[in-house]
Amino acid sequence: MSLYQQLAEQLATRIEQGLYRPGQRLPSVRTLSQEHGVSLSTVQQAYRQLEDQGLAQPKAKSGYFVPQARPTPPLPSMGRAPQRPVEISQWPQVLELVSQAPGSGWLQLGRGMPDISSPTLKPLLRSLAQLSRRQQLRELSYGSLQGDPALREQIARLMLDSGCQIAADELLITTGCHEALSIALRSLCQPGDIVAVDSPSFHGVMQALKGFNIKALELPTDPLTGISLPALELALEQWPIKAIQLTPSCNNPLGYIMPDAHKRALLALAQRHDVAVIEDDVYGDLAYRYPRPRTIKSFDDDGRVLLCSSFSKTLAPGLRVGWIAPGRYLQQVQHQKYISSGMNAPVPQHALADFISQGHYQPHLRRMRSQYAQNLGLVVEWISRYLPPGTRVSQPRGGFMLWLELAPQFDSQRLNRLLAPHKLMVAPGSIFSAAGKYRNCLRLNYALKPTPDLEQAIKQLGLCIDSLLEAHA
Amino acid sequence: MSLYQQLAEQLATRIEQGLYRPGQRLPSVRTLSQEHGVSLSTVQQAYRQLEDQGLAQPKAKSGYFVPQARPTPPLPSMGRAPQRPVEISQWPQVLELVSQAPGSGWLQLGRGMPDISSPTLKPLLRSLAQLSRRQQLRELSYGSLQGDPALREQIARLMLDSGCQIAADELLITTGCHEALSIALRSLCQPGDIVAVDSPSFHGVMQALKGFNIKALELPTDPLTGISLPALELALEQWPIKAIQLTPSCNNPLGYIMPDAHKRALLALAQRHDVAVIEDDVYGDLAYRYPRPRTIKSFDDDGRVLLCSSFSKTLAPGLRVGWIAPGRYLQQVQHQKYISSGMNAPVPQHALADFISQGHYQPHLRRMRSQYAQNLGLVVEWISRYLPPGTRVSQPRGGFMLWLELAPQFDSQRLNRLLAPHKLMVAPGSIFSAAGKYRNCLRLNYALKPTPDLEQAIKQLGLCIDSLLEAHA
Repeated sequence: MSLYQQLAEQLATRIEQGLYRPGQRLPSVRTLSQEHGVSLSTVQQAYRQLEDQGLAQPKAKSGYFVPQARPTPPLPSMGRAPQRPVEISQWPQVLELVSQAPGSGWLQLGRGMPDISSPTLKPLLRSLAQLSRRQQLRELSYGSLQGDPALREQIARLMLDSGCQIAADELLITTGCHEALSIALRSLCQPGDIVAVDSPSFHGVMQALKGFNIKALELPTDPLTGISLPALELALEQWPIKAIQLTPSCNNPLGYIMPDAHKRALLALAQRHDVAVIEDDVYGDLAYRYPRPRTIKSFDDDGRVLLCSSFSKTLAPGLRVGWIAPGRYLQQVQHQKYISSGMNAPVPQHALADFISQGHYQPHLRRMRSQYAQNLGLVVEWISRYLPPGTRVSQPRGGFMLWLELAPQFDSQRLNRLLAPHKLMVAPGSIFSAAGKYRNCLRLNYALKPTPDLEQAIKQLGLCIDSLLEAHA
Repeated sequence: MSLYQQLAEQLATRIEQGLYRPGQRLPSVRTLSQEHGVSLSTVQQAYRQLEDQGLAQPKAKSGYFVPQARPTPPLPSMGRAPQRPVEISQWPQVLELVSQAPGSGWLQLGRGMPDISSPTLKPLLRSLAQLSRRQQLRELSYGSLQGDPALREQIARLMLDSGCQIAADELLITTGCHEALSIALRSLCQPGDIVAVDSPSFHGVMQALKGFNIKALELPTDPLTGISLPALELALEQWPIKAIQLTPSCNNPLGYIMPDAHKRALLALAQRHDVAVIEDDVYGDLAYRYPRPRTIKSFDDDGRVLLCSSFSKTLAPGLRVGWIAPGRYLQQVQHQKYISSGMNAPVPQHALADFISQGHYQPHLRRMRSQYAQNLGLVVEWISRYLPPGTRVSQPRGGFMLWLELAPQFDSQRLNRLLAPHKLMVAPGSIFSAAGKYRNCLRLNYALKPTPDLEQAIKQLGLCIDSLLEAHA
């Protein structure tokens, strides 16, 4: 860890412990520089990091302050999962969510769509245009099955940030994280097999399990620390589980980061019971705290973790570039990739390799992390203001997704029918569960810069929720 | 059919019936114009089409001639397939074929790679560059699950040429024909099911069957007319077949076009036994005769044909844009597409929609069909000259693939080891069979303009084959 990171960590701890109170002025740059014997620019870097994390706020000509504390809504409750493997339904609900193209005039509050309007993405678009203009034949040709070697080199380098030391030839490029997860499941499981999952869980994986006739065993999941390890241990003893599939860093939809100790303990359980781990890290680089959390893969010493990720959330989904680090399952994964969609398109791979090697990725991440952390505060404030009291709200540590839990009798699918005339749509909670639980929950996207339009949309959301709840009362 | 097409058809029939002999001068443009009461330019158009088809040759200032007949090598024999469903192997051989990236200095005579250097592709590259430069957000966003509506409109329009009347919303865009075939199989079959296939058959489908644990029943296939209908009928009576998968138009690897009567009869068999048909039409638009052959799908009146295709062979594989017209299976196919790779990248879809709607597709096809037909003649001549006498050669009616059959004891995998020091590689015949048959066969690509380098490569191929055969003798 560099000097400024150490300093930022120290200050963050003090702020979080309440040594500096909300609204209070933080020590000046000069004071800290003298106190810690570091340069002024090191202190400034530390403050910029705290600012990104939402822990410090600059005021013109008067230094940095601790942001005013906002009232925190209660957390969602821990899922009471059915303690047996189930088959998955909910496809019509997912189809409704994903079949609408963007730009159709709807505000799709439920989609997993990042903000792609950031100027830090411009070098990527430039590179895409140049590659096509240059008319190199390789851009129209079949690429290599494993993916562009230059891009794999860059991804291997990025993975060092999550504690992973992986060679480029241990990676395989996929059509987004979606294909990576799908390939991982098919490489490990046969129809009828059981996979243990966190709950709520990404609807794409739920549907993949359904499509391959694999059963899901949904495990209780804490909204701050993730999958329950005692429940997992019990499940591994009771059921012939083939794999554990989870999103431990900046979870979708709950936003938590599983503590390192839990990640290690989960891996130890997987080793003891000899099952594979499918780790979805697609939001991991968007953690608000720097450095980003470690992956379970980073502790993996016998190749049983298949790490799946993509640039769809960090950069842009339209690139359709993801990857998988499949450990000991490389051969099976290669075969499944070949039969899934053959090779990936060369142009976006080359453009991404350029973008990262020219140093554009980290500044972009920095900006987006900061934007999403700032949006979060405001959107939670609006939710507190416009949604019924008692609405439970997740506390994301990264990404751009909020999980809301309403009164038990609430039905988020009926909510979408009420929202439709206003061209609004949320992700209904039930699609995040194999058993169709979480009907009283919903997922909200807060990636876009909060505008009066968004405030209006959340106000409308509140009104529709009220009218649904009144109808029940 | 327009006037010039009717005239071209009449002349083609006369040439093929021997009314005009090889080397003989064809009627002058003026004569035909007077005889048929059509304009001079109509006759010229008809002659251009015959030229494209390799049936007429222009000589400066002396009109059109019937090309000199070249000695035609014997056809490959009809496959003696094992009359029972088998599981598929041959993955290491396929991996070797597909894992090499182009431009690595090798002459990959075995790959299914079209010539992408044609200037008629320039508008496509321009459009790709413009879309990226314009920096429209929709290009980086998730598209719709079914694919860009404008592109689907264009594809539906193109499909009229093969006799298909299909609405844009009956189509689904995929990551190449590869994903379309894979999705079709998964939509219809469970592990352990049996699929009847033509033989030899595309290795991608063979590997998909392997990956999904579906068994292949390989049926005897005539090198000029395709899958044996009596054998298919017998198989349908004997085995619980779930689907028939075949490439009836410009078959890969044999190049035949199944006659319309056979296509109708096959569909009738499928209806009588209530099985689905997965029709691969990826080379169909590259038929040397105009108009292109009809698809089985064009006769389909109860939605049991899943037509799979792409622009990978007609335009460029690096676009990764294919489609499926799944008939009554649209719902299953949508679900399988979602879990396979989610949405397709928007940029290539928009660029293709532009390219086709601006009228660039047909001129490009015209050029490629003519180029491939001309290449074929020369490459077959070189094969007759440099390969052992008795080498059997397919007679492709479209596409750019040749199938060669050598003496029974010959082994094309060993051939590749001999070719490696010369940076040459062919597609070994065994990967086109579930049971690993056709070891004495190989597939050759003749898409690239024949150069002295290519002649040298075929000479080298002949030398390596000779040395292998001598070692056996």
